[in-house]
Amino acid sequence: LKIINVILSGGVGSRLWPLSRKSKPKQYLPLFEGQTLFQKTALRNRNFCEKILVVGNIDNYNLSRKDLAQAGIKEYQEIIEACPRNTAAAIAFAAFSCEPSDILFVTPSDHLIGNQNLYQKALIRAFELAKEGYLVTFGLKPSRPDTGFGYIESQGEQVKSFREKPDLERAIQFIDAGNFYWNSGMFCFQAGVFLEELEKLTPEVYKSSKEAIDHAIDGKLHESLSLRIPSISVDYAVMEKTDRIRVVPSEFTWSDMGSFEAIYDHFVSEGYPTDESGNMVIGEGPYTEFLGLKECILVNTPECILVLDKNKAQDVKKVFERLEVDKPHLIN
Amino acid sequence: LKIINVILSGGVGSRLWPLSRKSKPKQYLPLFEGQTLFQKTALRNRNFCEKILVVGNIDNYNLSRKDLAQAGIKEYQEIIEACPRNTAAAIAFAAFSCEPSDILFVTPSDHLIGNQNLYQKALIRAFELAKEGYLVTFGLKPSRPDTGFGYIESQGEQVKSFREKPDLERAIQFIDAGNFYWNSGMFCFQAGVFLEELEKLTPEVYKSSKEAIDHAIDGKLHESLSLRIPSISVDYAVMEKTDRIRVVPSEFTWSDMGSFEAIYDHFVSEGYPTDESGNMVIGEGPYTEFLGLKECILVNTPECILVLDKNKAQDVKKVFERLEVDKPHLIN
Repeated sequence: LKIINVILSGGVGSRLWPLSRKSKPKQYLPLFEGQTLFQKTALRNRNFCEKILVVGNIDNYNLSRKDLAQAGIKEYQEIIEACPRNTAAAIAFAAFSCEPSDILFVTPSDHLIGNQNLYQKALIRAFELAKEGYLVTFGLKPSRPDTGFGYIESQGEQVKSFREKPDLERAIQFIDAGNFYWNSGMFCFQAGVFLEELEKLTPEVYKSSKEAIDHAIDGKLHESLSLRIPSISVDYAVMEKTDRIRVVPSEFTWSDMGSFEAIYDHFVSEGYPTDESGNMVIGEGPYTEFLGLKECILVNTPECILVLDKNKAQDVKKVFERLEVDKPHLIN
Repeated sequence: LKIINVILSGGVGSRLWPLSRKSKPKQYLPLFEGQTLFQKTALRNRNFCEKILVVGNIDNYNLSRKDLAQAGIKEYQEIIEACPRNTAAAIAFAAFSCEPSDILFVTPSDHLIGNQNLYQKALIRAFELAKEGYLVTFGLKPSRPDTGFGYIESQGEQVKSFREKPDLERAIQFIDAGNFYWNSGMFCFQAGVFLEELEKLTPEVYKSSKEAIDHAIDGKLHESLSLRIPSISVDYAVMEKTDRIRVVPSEFTWSDMGSFEAIYDHFVSEGYPTDESGNMVIGEGPYTEFLGLKECILVNTPECILVLDKNKAQDVKKVFERLEVDKPHLIN
C-alpha cells in the first residue's frame, strides 16, 4: 500500500496573460520565491507521498520534466496525454497505472497552500478515510463569498450536496450557513475503489480510458484512442454520484493564483513593492511610473505589456481569447 | 532691412518625461510626421524671413545643428548661451548681433501652428507695424479658458493690459469679454527699437547683455559675464512697460505641445490609433493592451515607462522633479 501524489497538469492560465502563454502555462512560471506552482506542489506533497505520478500532456511534459529536475526530484512516473480529456479520464489513467490498493492523492499543480500543519492534518484524515474505502474530497473553509468556485454542503464528513458556482446572493447564504466549503479539486481514494465507482457510474469513460492507457507506449497515449473518451470532470463522472463520498473539512489557506488580483494580493502579503497609490509592476522591464492611477498592475514581458485595473483581473481571459483570434503569435 | 527669425531654444519640457529628458528636450523630439518642433519652426518661418538666428545654449546647440542639417537648412547664425538668462537677455543678444533696422521675428521653438494662411496674414501685419517702429506681440484668439497662459487685453491693435495666468473664473470672464488673447511668446520689432526700449526701461539687462555679447567668441558667451545679467522675461523687461507696444490679434491655431494631453489630442486629430476605451501608446516597445482603463497613455522608452491618466498630464512635471532628486540618471 503506497500513497501516490497524482499531479494533474493542464490548462494555460489565460487570465495571467502575458506572463502565461500556451507555451508557458501558469503552473510553470517561477513567480513564488523563484519556484513554480508545479514545483511547489511536488515538493509539498513529497512529504506525505511515496511516489509522484504526473499526468500531463504533449505540450507541457517537457516543462514538467525541467521543473522537477530543477527541484531535485528524479523519481517520478509520467502519463502524457495526446489531447485534453478532462479530469475523469486523467485520474482514470493514473488509477489504471497503479495497484488497486494504492492510495491516490490527486492534486492540481497550480495552487499555493498556506499553513502546512493544517494541510498535513487534513491529509492524514483523508488517508485514513481512503484506507476505509471512501472517495475523499477536500472542503476548504471559504474566506469570502467567492462566486468563482463550486461549493460542497457538508454535515461533518458527510456530503449533503455539491453546488455549482453560485451567484453572489447564494454565495453569501453559503458563508452564513457555515457548513459550505469550496470544492478544492483535490481528491484522495484507493485506485481500485475509484475505478469500481467509475465503471459503475460512468462506464463509457471507464472503458475508453482503459482502452487508451492499455495501448499507451512509455506512458504516452495515442490521439485517436484518446479522442473517443468523453471529456467530463471527475466531479460529474464520479464524485457527485457515488455514495462512497466523504469530505474532509479543511482550514488550510489555498489560492489558485488564477488572476492578477490573486497574484497582487499574494505579492503584497509577501512585501513586494507598490507605489503609494497601490500600483504594481510585475515582470521585467524598464523603470516604471504610474500617474493618476490606483491599484493598477503593469505586466511587462519582452513581447507584450498589459496594463490593467486590478479589479478587472478576471477579464484578462477575454483579452486572451480576442488575441487568440487576432494575434495568435502573442499568446502561443 | 532684413527680416530675421530669432529662434529661442531653451527648456526641457519636463511634462513630456520620459520622452523628453535633459539631454533630449521637447523641441528636439521627432514626434510630428518625423519632424521635431524645432525643425518645424525653422521651416515654417523660412517662408517669411531672410535669415535664421538661433539663440540656444551649451546643452542644446548640437541638437539644434543636427536638426537644421536634417531639415536641409545650412545658412543660419547662432548664439550659444553659457547659462539660462531668460528671454529679455536672449533677445537682447540677438538684437545686438543685427543691424538696428533689421526686423526680428522672435519665436519659441516648441510650438505647432495650424492654418498657415492665417499665420501669414498675422505676420504680414506684424512686419508692417514693426517697420513703423512698434514692438509687436501676437495675441492668439483663445479656444478655451486656459489657466496656463498669460492674456493680453486689447482694443484693436492697442494693448490695454497684460494679465498674468488667471484662475478659471477669470479666464472664463476673459473669453466672454472677447477682447482677451493668449500671449503667444512671439514678438516682432526692429532690433534698434527693441534695444532703445530695453535701455530705457530695464537698463541693467541692456548693459550686462551688451557686455556679455561684446565678449562672445564665435557666438559663444562667457559664463561669468552671463551670470551678471538679471534673469527676467522680455514681457516684464520691455513689453509690459513700453508705450510703443502693439498687438496683432490672430486666429491661427497654436499649441505648445507641452503636455501628454496636448500630444494625445493632436495625435488623435491626426488619426493616430487608440483602443476602444481611448487608451494610447506613445513610443517604441512591445505590443500593449489596456484593461479596465480609460484615456490612459503609456509612454514607452528604452529606460522608462510612464503610465498616466490623460487628465493628470500636468502632473508629469511633479514626477520629473521627484526623479530629479531620487533618480537623476532617469531624467538626464
